[in-house]
Amino acid sequence: MTKEPKIRNKLVYGFGEGEADGYGTLKNLLGGKGANLAEMAGHPDLKLPVPPGFTITTEVCNFFYSNQRKYPEHLKKEVLSAIEKLEKQSGKKFGDPSNPLLLSVRSGARQSMPGMMDTVLNIGLNDQTIKGAILQTGDERFVFDSYRRLIMMYADVVMEKAAGLEPPDGKGIRKILEEKLESLKKMKNYSVDTDLSPADLKELVQDYKQTVFSVLGKPFPQDTLEQLWGGISAVFASWNGKRAIEYRRIEKIPNEWGTAVNVQTMVFGNMGNDCVTGVAFTRNPGNGENHFYGEYLINAQGEDVVAGIRTPAPINEFSKNSQSKELQTLESLMPEIYEELDEYQRRLETHYKDMQDIEFTVEKGKLYILQTRVGKRNGVASVKMATDMYEEGLIDKNTAIKRVSPAQLLELLLPQVDPLIEKNTPFIAKGLPAGPGGASGKVVFTNEEAISWTEKGEKVILVREETSPEDVDGMHTAQGILTSKGGMTSHAALVARGWGKCCIVGCSELEIDLKNKCFTTLDGTVIKHGEWITLNGTKGLAYKGALPLVNSDIAENSTYKKLMTLIDETKKLGVRANVENPSDAEIALNFGAEGIGLFRTEHMFYGEESEKPLLLLRKMILSQDEKERREALDELYNYVKKDIKATLKVMKGLPVTIRLLDPPLHEFVPHDKEKLIELSKELKVPRRILEKRILALHENNPMLGHRGVRLGISYPEITEMQIRAILQSACELTLEGIEVRPEIMIPVVVSSNELKHQKVVVEKVSKEICGNHDLSKVKYLFGSMIETPRAAIKANRLAIEAEFFSFGTNDLTQMSFGFSRDDIGGFLPTYLNQNILYSDPFVTIDQDGIGELLRIAIERGRSVRPDLKIGLCGEHGGDPESVKFCHNLGIDYVSCSPFRVPIARLAAAQAVLEEN
Amino acid sequence: MTKEPKIRNKLVYGFGEGEADGYGTLKNLLGGKGANLAEMAGHPDLKLPVPPGFTITTEVCNFFYSNQRKYPEHLKKEVLSAIEKLEKQSGKKFGDPSNPLLLSVRSGARQSMPGMMDTVLNIGLNDQTIKGAILQTGDERFVFDSYRRLIMMYADVVMEKAAGLEPPDGKGIRKILEEKLESLKKMKNYSVDTDLSPADLKELVQDYKQTVFSVLGKPFPQDTLEQLWGGISAVFASWNGKRAIEYRRIEKIPNEWGTAVNVQTMVFGNMGNDCVTGVAFTRNPGNGENHFYGEYLINAQGEDVVAGIRTPAPINEFSKNSQSKELQTLESLMPEIYEELDEYQRRLETHYKDMQDIEFTVEKGKLYILQTRVGKRNGVASVKMATDMYEEGLIDKNTAIKRVSPAQLLELLLPQVDPLIEKNTPFIAKGLPAGPGGASGKVVFTNEEAISWTEKGEKVILVREETSPEDVDGMHTAQGILTSKGGMTSHAALVARGWGKCCIVGCSELEIDLKNKCFTTLDGTVIKHGEWITLNGTKGLAYKGALPLVNSDIAENSTYKKLMTLIDETKKLGVRANVENPSDAEIALNFGAEGIGLFRTEHMFYGEESEKPLLLLRKMILSQDEKERREALDELYNYVKKDIKATLKVMKGLPVTIRLLDPPLHEFVPHDKEKLIELSKELKVPRRILEKRILALHENNPMLGHRGVRLGISYPEITEMQIRAILQSACELTLEGIEVRPEIMIPVVVSSNELKHQKVVVEKVSKEICGNHDLSKVKYLFGSMIETPRAAIKANRLAIEAEFFSFGTNDLTQMSFGFSRDDIGGFLPTYLNQNILYSDPFVTIDQDGIGELLRIAIERGRSVRPDLKIGLCGEHGGDPESVKFCHNLGIDYVSCSPFRVPIARLAAAQAVLEEN
Repeated sequence: MTKEPKIRNKLVYGFGEGEADGYGTLKNLLGGKGANLAEMAGHPDLKLPVPPGFTITTEVCNFFYSNQRKYPEHLKKEVLSAIEKLEKQSGKKFGDPSNPLLLSVRSGARQSMPGMMDTVLNIGLNDQTIKGAILQTGDERFVFDSYRRLIMMYADVVMEKAAGLEPPDGKGIRKILEEKLESLKKMKNYSVDTDLSPADLKELVQDYKQTVFSVLGKPFPQDTLEQLWGGISAVFASWNGKRAIEYRRIEKIPNEWGTAVNVQTMVFGNMGNDCVTGVAFTRNPGNGENHFYGEYLINAQGEDVVAGIRTPAPINEFSKNSQSKELQTLESLMPEIYEELDEYQRRLETHYKDMQDIEFTVEKGKLYILQTRVGKRNGVASVKMATDMYEEGLIDKNTAIKRVSPAQLLELLLPQVDPLIEKNTPFIAKGLPAGPGGASGKVVFTNEEAISWTEKGEKVILVREETSPEDVDGMHTAQGILTSKGGMTSHAALVARGWGKCCIVGCSELEIDLKNKCFTTLDGTVIKHGEWITLNGTKGLAYKGALPLVNSDIAENSTYKKLMTLIDETKKLGVRANVENPSDAEIALNFGAEGIGLFRTEHMFYGEESEKPLLLLRKMILSQDEKERREALDELYNYVKKDIKATLKVMKGLPVTIRLLDPPLHEFVPHDKEKLIELSKELKVPRRILEKRILALHENNPMLGHRGVRLGISYPEITEMQIRAILQSACELTLEGIEVRPEIMIPVVVSSNELKHQKVVVEKVSKEICGNHDLSKVKYLFGSMIETPRAAIKANRLAIEAEFFSFGTNDLTQMSFGFSRDDIGGFLPTYLNQNILYSDPFVTIDQDGIGELLRIAIERGRSVRPDLKIGLCGEHGGDPESVKFCHNLGIDYVSCSPFRVPIARLAAAQAVLEEN
Repeated sequence: MTKEPKIRNKLVYGFGEGEADGYGTLKNLLGGKGANLAEMAGHPDLKLPVPPGFTITTEVCNFFYSNQRKYPEHLKKEVLSAIEKLEKQSGKKFGDPSNPLLLSVRSGARQSMPGMMDTVLNIGLNDQTIKGAILQTGDERFVFDSYRRLIMMYADVVMEKAAGLEPPDGKGIRKILEEKLESLKKMKNYSVDTDLSPADLKELVQDYKQTVFSVLGKPFPQDTLEQLWGGISAVFASWNGKRAIEYRRIEKIPNEWGTAVNVQTMVFGNMGNDCVTGVAFTRNPGNGENHFYGEYLINAQGEDVVAGIRTPAPINEFSKNSQSKELQTLESLMPEIYEELDEYQRRLETHYKDMQDIEFTVEKGKLYILQTRVGKRNGVASVKMATDMYEEGLIDKNTAIKRVSPAQLLELLLPQVDPLIEKNTPFIAKGLPAGPGGASGKVVFTNEEAISWTEKGEKVILVREETSPEDVDGMHTAQGILTSKGGMTSHAALVARGWGKCCIVGCSELEIDLKNKCFTTLDGTVIKHGEWITLNGTKGLAYKGALPLVNSDIAENSTYKKLMTLIDETKKLGVRANVENPSDAEIALNFGAEGIGLFRTEHMFYGEESEKPLLLLRKMILSQDEKERREALDELYNYVKKDIKATLKVMKGLPVTIRLLDPPLHEFVPHDKEKLIELSKELKVPRRILEKRILALHENNPMLGHRGVRLGISYPEITEMQIRAILQSACELTLEGIEVRPEIMIPVVVSSNELKHQKVVVEKVSKEICGNHDLSKVKYLFGSMIETPRAAIKANRLAIEAEFFSFGTNDLTQMSFGFSRDDIGGFLPTYLNQNILYSDPFVTIDQDGIGELLRIAIERGRSVRPDLKIGLCGEHGGDPESVKFCHNLGIDYVSCSPFRVPIARLAAAQAVLEEN
């Protein structure tokens, strides 16, 4: 859909020599680069030595595309007059054989799209102007090299790509010309480009011109104005190049934004030893320390610093590292230049109030600032800079909070694969990033091995097709988990995320061969049992070998603590944690949880110490009548109560929401013969009968089966036991003088009648316990999970019975989409690739659909109970986008795994700042 | 919650002797019985000889309960003056020893609650008045017998039950007194009550009085007014008796309605051979024929006719049956009385404009009409009466349509177990009534047996724990299906309902022993393989042996056709059918379907002729890449097209909605070793590899898995093949001059992007086929199932792409409740028993929850596409209540199994008539 774009009269904005037509906030019109150049050149606080130039606006780009690639009429005149101005400023003339002005033509969109669009340098060189250039620079080799580069770049970008002449085999003009260069070097027996003599280059230029003509059917243009317009058109054309379109799709950049074109006087850092090019940061992007930090190369161009062929030198002492510590600093090499640069970087940071990434060039002793932009930084640096700048008074509190992204904060919380090493290591497999952080260990394939190897002091990575509750000990003990099946909310992913454990799931290219104890990756790499591998759970990449990890101990990080204080002062949304036992609760408290939003009592039936309670649970499940069931429950009571009491105690008066038994019972019964025989002995029930009872528990769709409150209604004695454990604990602690705030939560509710039914049980038990204790001090709440679509729709009826709601968005997503989270591996990747869904609804809440159900439930619930407390305890509670959505919905709190609590707090604070 | 009821000044309404204070429409105030008595006595068109009496209003009942069981002050005065009036009319006096008036006291609620409340007869007899009674009747034996009965009834109803003195062991005063009678008879060696002499009865009366005093601590009251008030209070008290409360709960009768009390002069049909008691119907309730029909007994009381101890005689020639054909008719015995009775029945039917069920008594040559009410009738009679009465001009069209209940219409469509025989046969097992009608056959336990036995000419009932798609041939061939597992929407239930086949499911008390080829019922009855059983699928009851069935051939039933014409003139909602093949479509047309609302193409992969297409489907499913898949699809195309084309042809221009492939693919792959080996040979793929591919298809919750449009997106070539089959068929038929209206329906949609994706495929194929044919005449619609909660919520987005919606309420119910219909057996019975849900949401649509989602979807869908066609094709489309709900929602059509089409048409017409 093309709309006729508005276009203003002024299409070209000049900058340089202390003045500029534009300024920094005109990003939409001038693009990021253009606006920054104008700001640097023209702003009274900056007035930096920017190579003069001008920017053609993004509006021209849009005009270009909606008018069959033509330009507005007055563009030509404006460009010519801008060039005249450049000529005046530089004393050179564009196309002048005696003293030619050389220009670069670069793209510059509103948001940076690094490397996605085209650039042409050295425009203005032709067979005539090279003479003047040689005269001016006195460097024939340099000029011919520049001319050769112009011809190649121009032929490639303008004459071939922009004209749509790229051959399908990929062997375009650039490749052909590069081969010419290589064969010349080979013929002459040269090893590097710099071996080429001026005469060689002269010969190459001739060859290049002929080749361009014979391949593309047109000569390389000698008319410098034709060169310029060719360059401009090519940049605009590259906005709709394949790579750029794809990038915009991924980054969600609208097509209508368009790109600006920046035409700028060329400066050269490669004209001799009085020339320098470099990149610097106003603070250290690796650790956030407030020292000017950067690298430079003598006699080089910008891309040489990035390319990493020569080791760049440090600009000052603070910038030295192990590789560069012997090299001379810029500070000592060119003290005046350094001082000038230092002055500029101070101005820039003070002006932009953020750490800047600066490109600079010294051409024959004169310093130019080529570019400034907000510098990228890692998590530690981000937190440190935000708190430092706040304390320095450079930024206010809100800005400090907005500065740190949730992903950066997460980096702080977890060990990471050393990024410098990882960059140069090819990965062997790619899966879904289910549990962030890094982990290294030896490959094991079973739960038992994971445990026994760890006991022997080994670090292990547990590799499985899928994990099940029976694997939890091994998962817990392993450094990381790698599975070949399952999605972002598979068992492995959920459990790992809960523990803050590194985990990659759904790595479908992995072929696990348990017989031969090894796995094979897509490229045929075979990793054997006991071999080291390393996981980057943040990116979902696996590596062969033990890559080093970098750690960050949050407890010692004082800037982290300062930031979190600012965050807590700002946020309105409560943040609680989902836990499974008292030690989880302690971790959650340390991470700043303001309560427990979901205490899963069933956890005691999994894992290491579950033997006895699991046996009792199985006895209860497989009992034939209420009497047998009650006997088992009476014994089970002690285990349940112990966990609940300890958790209530840890949380000292903070709310603890205890969910009654949720999973279908058959999840707890053994399915293999061996364990069945064992159980048969222990329960003294013949195996045949056990098998029959277990079969009767089988369900085709357990997710939609006999679970949650349905169990509590079928077997009220189960509810009774749990309520007794909760209220008895609460009473005892109250008598010990410890404040408690238990909240009883009923899962999988569809109707208010279910709540009524369970309330009768709760009130019965409450009265009984009241008889033994002074319950007047113990207050508990009674509430409902909202995790079925019907519950959301009927919220006005449920709120009559429930004092609080808690959205179980995992199940709500499963049921509303009809997506089983265990089974989405079969189609979700296709859905995401084809943009049928824009994100995994189990990771980030589906605001359109699920969000609408939440809105309905909140509105209806509060319509009958205005003070209804509303929380969310699905996995989404730890996802920053979802947390912000929750804030905007007006719910009271989110609850997430302990390791996600700081992330949720940050997102909650940012949500406040993003209002309006 | 008791609210202070309003109460008017008049509390007592008299009737009799050609006048009445009340009338027939005062049912709320006088109860059904009281209002009818007033109407019969007082209405100028009737003026029937009703035994005089009076009615105490229901308002008194409510007053009684909200004032500690006290009465309004002026009640006493009104009752006394009403009795005075009765005394005047009868010339007798209440409590007069010389000529006593005897009264009955009966309950009478707004809606009949047969047998649920108490009655006291013969009030007014005491030690003094018996003398006058003997004097008046000249029948000592009769009077003492009546007195004995009064004492027993009064002691039981008034002195014990109403006083709350019932002993917990159930051995109450009635039982004690009955034992006295029995022991007297035993002592005297009498066989029946009538052997008792007046002296015996006199002795018994004495004994009764003493026993009452010693057991209940109070004497039987001699004060006749105390008797009367005791009776009245007892009737009011019985409104809140256990049985009555339970009955009201089931029948959804509000507690606030209360009961009236009817006090009436006693008349006796048992005072000699000039006395008669009888029951008559204004038309034959068994077949609907317009003849006066009834039975009577000489010298008997009303309950004797009902009790069936003596064979009643026919009132006229039309009423004779095989047992009564030799007995004298009332018409010949008492021609004048008969003529009078006939005159009254005519008046009653003309007045009430419906068939009446009349109780009458002749006391010493005088005819009394005791009661009239609308007569119950079976399905055949109901349809005949409604059309006859309409044609006679007795009722209008709307009344005729309202007269027939959907259940009665269903009786017409299916064979039934002969109700007369069934009444006297104990059932051996009770399950869920999944497929209505009756069926008899020999028990078989496997699909194969069902087929082979039927081929040998045997009728069989297939008895299974559960059925699966592999059983469909046996199910089809069997007379009926009985399963021990599964709910109302289990596989067996769904399939049976679709075929109109008799089926009972979830008969959990059945223990099937396949080893010994038999099953055992709860009471220990063992039914062996090959034994005859009979199923009543309407009630869910199974019987041993072959009970006779009564058939009704709809095609020959002209009254049915007349009724359906009236119905179709009235209804607005369209009714389509869900079919699986062309022969289904023909059946549907015969049942009046106006199109196909759901054509399930996957049916061809089940059942007898599925061998080849199923193999091709399996080949497609288990193929490794798109190429292999396309090869299989190309072959499969011919089968798919054949079915679609034939169905479009059958439906001659009526719309045919074709749903694209819906079930998860793994449903079609074999799981047992034998079939796998076979498949491995046929596909020429090693079994090990097949097993691996099948394992990869396994899903934990297939209902929420890779199915519906998710398949079409993962494998667009499957959609492509189906669309090609649809459009190619449509083109060919159009060229043959046959009108077609295909509608392409996408299943399991959650997002408009899915529809967009599939539309691209549809349009591509459409263009291709357009090239070969003149497609301008072929119109097709493109639409979406709405069966996920998210689809309902996002209906405004879906309606941009979809030209029609079809609600898949089965899945919508599953996902919104989180109820897997395969697994609800574990908890749904408890939910229904405990009134947590009021009905099975898979049988009758959950108007509160699912209904709300439908409303949202309709509103949102039509907001962007006002002419959006909306249908419903879940099982609910054949449920009358749900059909009415759909009419009220304003959707365009429902679609149900062919056998349900007439039911849906009736319900749709009734919905129009029920609109205010």
